[in-house]
Amino acid sequence: MNLRRYLPILDWGRTYDRGAFSNDMVAAVIVTIMLIPQSLAYALLAGLPPEAGIYASIAPIILYAIFGTSRALAVGPVAVVSLLTASAIGQVAEQGTAGYAVAALTLAFLSGGFLMLLGVLRLGFLANFLSHPVIAGFITASGILIAASQFKHILGISAQGHTLPEILMQLWENLGQTNWITVVLGVLATGFLFWVRKGLKPLMRRLGATPTVADFATKAGPVAAVVVTTLSVWLFGLDERGVKIVGSVPQSLPPLTMPGLSPDLIQALLIPAILISVIGFVESVSVAQTLAAKKRQRIDPDQELIGLGAANIGAAFTGGYPVTGGFSRSVVNYDAGAATPAAGAYTAVGLAIAAMALTPLVYFLPNATLAATIIVAVLSLVDFSILKKTWDYSASDFVAVTVTILLTLLMGVEIGVASGVVISVLLHLYKTSRPHVAEVGLVPGTQHFRNIHRHDVETDPKVVTLRVDESLYFINARFLEELVQSRVTEGCEIEHVILMFSAVNEVDFSALESLEAINLRLSDMGVGLHLSEVKGPVLDRLRQSHLLDVLNGQVFLSQYDAWRSVTDTSGQTAPTS
Amino acid sequence: MNLRRYLPILDWGRTYDRGAFSNDMVAAVIVTIMLIPQSLAYALLAGLPPEAGIYASIAPIILYAIFGTSRALAVGPVAVVSLLTASAIGQVAEQGTAGYAVAALTLAFLSGGFLMLLGVLRLGFLANFLSHPVIAGFITASGILIAASQFKHILGISAQGHTLPEILMQLWENLGQTNWITVVLGVLATGFLFWVRKGLKPLMRRLGATPTVADFATKAGPVAAVVVTTLSVWLFGLDERGVKIVGSVPQSLPPLTMPGLSPDLIQALLIPAILISVIGFVESVSVAQTLAAKKRQRIDPDQELIGLGAANIGAAFTGGYPVTGGFSRSVVNYDAGAATPAAGAYTAVGLAIAAMALTPLVYFLPNATLAATIIVAVLSLVDFSILKKTWDYSASDFVAVTVTILLTLLMGVEIGVASGVVISVLLHLYKTSRPHVAEVGLVPGTQHFRNIHRHDVETDPKVVTLRVDESLYFINARFLEELVQSRVTEGCEIEHVILMFSAVNEVDFSALESLEAINLRLSDMGVGLHLSEVKGPVLDRLRQSHLLDVLNGQVFLSQYDAWRSVTDTSGQTAPTS
Repeated sequence: MNLRRYLPILDWGRTYDRGAFSNDMVAAVIVTIMLIPQSLAYALLAGLPPEAGIYASIAPIILYAIFGTSRALAVGPVAVVSLLTASAIGQVAEQGTAGYAVAALTLAFLSGGFLMLLGVLRLGFLANFLSHPVIAGFITASGILIAASQFKHILGISAQGHTLPEILMQLWENLGQTNWITVVLGVLATGFLFWVRKGLKPLMRRLGATPTVADFATKAGPVAAVVVTTLSVWLFGLDERGVKIVGSVPQSLPPLTMPGLSPDLIQALLIPAILISVIGFVESVSVAQTLAAKKRQRIDPDQELIGLGAANIGAAFTGGYPVTGGFSRSVVNYDAGAATPAAGAYTAVGLAIAAMALTPLVYFLPNATLAATIIVAVLSLVDFSILKKTWDYSASDFVAVTVTILLTLLMGVEIGVASGVVISVLLHLYKTSRPHVAEVGLVPGTQHFRNIHRHDVETDPKVVTLRVDESLYFINARFLEELVQSRVTEGCEIEHVILMFSAVNEVDFSALESLEAINLRLSDMGVGLHLSEVKGPVLDRLRQSHLLDVLNGQVFLSQYDAWRSVTDTSGQTAPTS
Repeated sequence: MNLRRYLPILDWGRTYDRGAFSNDMVAAVIVTIMLIPQSLAYALLAGLPPEAGIYASIAPIILYAIFGTSRALAVGPVAVVSLLTASAIGQVAEQGTAGYAVAALTLAFLSGGFLMLLGVLRLGFLANFLSHPVIAGFITASGILIAASQFKHILGISAQGHTLPEILMQLWENLGQTNWITVVLGVLATGFLFWVRKGLKPLMRRLGATPTVADFATKAGPVAAVVVTTLSVWLFGLDERGVKIVGSVPQSLPPLTMPGLSPDLIQALLIPAILISVIGFVESVSVAQTLAAKKRQRIDPDQELIGLGAANIGAAFTGGYPVTGGFSRSVVNYDAGAATPAAGAYTAVGLAIAAMALTPLVYFLPNATLAATIIVAVLSLVDFSILKKTWDYSASDFVAVTVTILLTLLMGVEIGVASGVVISVLLHLYKTSRPHVAEVGLVPGTQHFRNIHRHDVETDPKVVTLRVDESLYFINARFLEELVQSRVTEGCEIEHVILMFSAVNEVDFSALESLEAINLRLSDMGVGLHLSEVKGPVLDRLRQSHLLDVLNGQVFLSQYDAWRSVTDTSGQTAPTS
């Protein structure tokens, strides 16, 4: 039972049949065709040699198939994680050096280790710190950064930088070195890919193609762009006229590699690795959950951590770099009919064949084509509607998304997403720091108590009843102290304060001490403090403290009892019958 | 009106009379006598020349009297803030250099500026991030660190370090240089001061002294120790036998000084300044609130920020260092009958006279006596009962206090208190990340719904009703997604899910998107999603989103309506009449 939890393959593997096999094979062929140019392109985005992208799509897919719980998720390099990788490694090594590739392995290793640790400790909840608006804002800003960073390949110039101002400044400075043949290739490829994405499918349908064929053509579009531009470079010798090409890629299966494990390297990459893990996990889980729901299946987020962790550790030892479950490839996999994770394994086989046999064919592939592939892919991530949606819905979410977008663009991905998390938490705590507290009175002729400002209720100048509409904890404990003190100092005739705890689910130690302070201060003023409608678990807790021993008043089961008791005692108001 | 808010002196100043004056004068004399040795000692603890402690007690007191709202708070150097000052400045300058004193001024200036900023922006709530257990743990650990750091003066050796292991290691290494005359003076002074604190008052009462006289004698104890040890050094020439003494202190009013404002210095001291501000503010406000309550007065925390901010800026320009409202001096001030903040101003005059006239008298005062004063004062701060109390009351508070104590002792004050804050917030978020969700059914013959696991209630295999007992926000949004998905995939016969929102006070944008995802996934499974008992403000919010447009079900005013409607529709259960 436990083994099955950690090895989901034991679940679907034993019922695997011919039908599932043929479905999986079809899906694998389609995904493989789509992944070849995509893998090369994302490796370019990460600043790594092109083969790293293919290697990162082989072992990780197989490991995820063994350990992962989603039946349709396709694991491999994705745009945002590639950008994060480039940003993290750029701080410890120079692009193109051996140290850079080793750092990428280390990053994948640390990220995999962190994910597995979270999975084993069942700490997947930590991913929730990334709120939806922060993720949406971060992905939009990342899409813009990625597209901007690829412009250099379209222009055939060089430009570095991890923030939008840096990238734009460098593009501007090096604009004079623009290679116009590259520009022509790049612009045509970009235009073509946009057209494939938007216009090809409707056109083919009008020409009488079946939806499946039209879909397939759309997915093969990048391959067509790759073939045409590669042939152009080869036939016209454009590489000798300054068009930058992929060049020679080793013809080999994924090599066995060792991530660098020096303490300095680990220290420099640990925080980025955690960030990459969490962002990759959140993206992956939401894709997996959406696809699973369509077939009334379930995924186990803690086991997903283990699956993705294994995939990243696999990438670290086979010449790859950090990977996660990609949105577009998973949807393609699902739509193509993948029935089990075995589809992923067949994709891995397809990519392994490509790595051994097809790599010489991409020698003349221009970088501009890969950049076009990336730009077209990531611009679909850019979606500013989150600003409008949060603006309409909630001011604090709007602030969080705005801060995330601006800081990601201006200060880089790491500061951007970290600020988003911090500001979301602060805004949430701020909201709960001033809980709603209503002063209530008795609805005549009933035993109900309502807000004195909204209803016509009985009150007594000697008695103040405050209904607290939130759990009490350290962030709002002092607020209650101040509120009670300010209310009681308003009128010298007050003799009793009743705190009505019907909506208080928790009283932490700070709140307990605040209640003790309120009790002490009210005692000093000669005012009684009573509690009413305290929930069972809260009362059990309070009984373990000494608040109830020193309470200058009583604990009442119901607010009505409390009211009757204190108004009787003070003897000024007729008891309500 | 507004001017009065910012200048509380306009409030009490216009009713100031002879009675208040004589009360304030008496309090001022008592506090001044107590403050002279204390100020010298805390300056020593902060690593500053002794006069800095006196200067820091003059201008700040006057400024607080003008801007502060508490009538009894006495502002000046305190032990914990002195320790924090030493720790912060130790990182940018060498003790005894001019740069060290200038950095102390900068720290006071930044701290004052930050407090004023918080006050003007009315952001006093940020201080709540320091939960009571974290403060208690921090103060206990700081007391130990302070006492340990003063041992070198008792032994007459030198030792640096900002963590307990560092201090102990240095004491151990330099033990060979112990000056035995210093040890004798130090141990006698410490023993005498402990006896004054514990045994003098009962003794004098037994000997027939009035409580006031006994109290006064207790407070004058440190002065006696100062006088006796100073005379001993002078008469026997002990300073020539290796006893370290205070030496010459300039005879002057507080000088006009300028804090260093170089960007490097500001960058290095900004975080410590914020920490000092917040810790000082929290301590000060809780003392002020306790004393105000005794006379049914109120303090305004946001105005307190301005008062303390002004005091610190005053310290920065008059040769002082960071100050705050001290516990012991405030209580003494209050007990001695201080009626208005004017008492503080008279204390300032007393100290100014001391600074001009009395400083030559402390030339032969041994550092060991000052160290004894500090040790006796801070050991009263050490109180491990917080461990027991939180252990009994709540596991998460116990973890927070333990982490704070250990990290403060082992890693220093700044890391200690910062970790305490972070861990408190994380534990709180963790607690709300898995809200209580009860599956409920209809109590037969009523319109009430109760937990199906605790009560004998009607259920329907086609309908799942989940009552959510917490507001929904980004930290717990995905929890709900997973819970619903896991519940629905359990039984294929489920046709309706009702979410009962009676205890949901907020639905943030992330939770909204989770509800949309739940709705979409349930739609894919052919299951309806309904909401019931949604509170007015929450429903208003939801109406601004498009969730309700796409909801695959309805929103019901009451759970009973929802139940009747879906059980009617599914047509399998007889409608409850």
